[in-house]
Amino acid sequence: MLVKRNETEARQTLPGVTRRILNHGGKLMMTEFIFKKDTDVGIHSHPHEQISYLIRGSGKFHLEGIDTIIEEGDSLYIPSDVPHGFMSLEEDTTIIDAFTPLREDFL
Amino acid sequence: MLVKRNETEARQTLPGVTRRILNHGGKLMMTEFIFKKDTDVGIHSHPHEQISYLIRGSGKFHLEGIDTIIEEGDSLYIPSDVPHGFMSLEEDTTIIDAFTPLREDFL
Repeated sequence: MLVKRNETEARQTLPGVTRRILNHGGKLMMTEFIFKKDTDVGIHSHPHEQISYLIRGSGKFHLEGIDTIIEEGDSLYIPSDVPHGFMSLEEDTTIIDAFTPLREDFL
Repeated sequence: MLVKRNETEARQTLPGVTRRILNHGGKLMMTEFIFKKDTDVGIHSHPHEQISYLIRGSGKFHLEGIDTIIEEGDSLYIPSDVPHGFMSLEEDTTIIDAFTPLREDFL
């Protein structure tokens, strides 16, 4: 199914965090998160596997006890149930996430 | 695992098509395809579910017998085994694809 980004709902999910569901179906979802500068989403985990791809800005990614600075073009694979966190370092830092299975909790 | 885009291999998979594997693990893969103008990849199918997100340029996407013009910010969900195709309409048209399960055939 075709989805146009500008017709998706932009939802503020935390202070400084805007989430769009870009598309989803079956066992797959793609989302966009836009962060205000210095927004810390905190460490969390979920059973869904995730790939986060940073397309704009920069941030500090926490994964498996290690903090890593990530910049444009960097991506991370996050296995099922592994705690991870993110703090943006620039205004409008933008991450594209893929999840499998899809995040029913986002729908 | 952190992967930096500029350290991934850029592989020409068809004339006018450059593929990078951005990241992968478990049952999930994210790739980038860059197309020269007017590149037609032809109709194909695979058991993997796919979301294609166009981040630059434009193209004509064929899915389930229907041709759709897609532009920046547009995305498509492609179910397992459904024939689909793509033709770029601009130079350096760029698509981010997510697949589940991962494309073993790309590794």
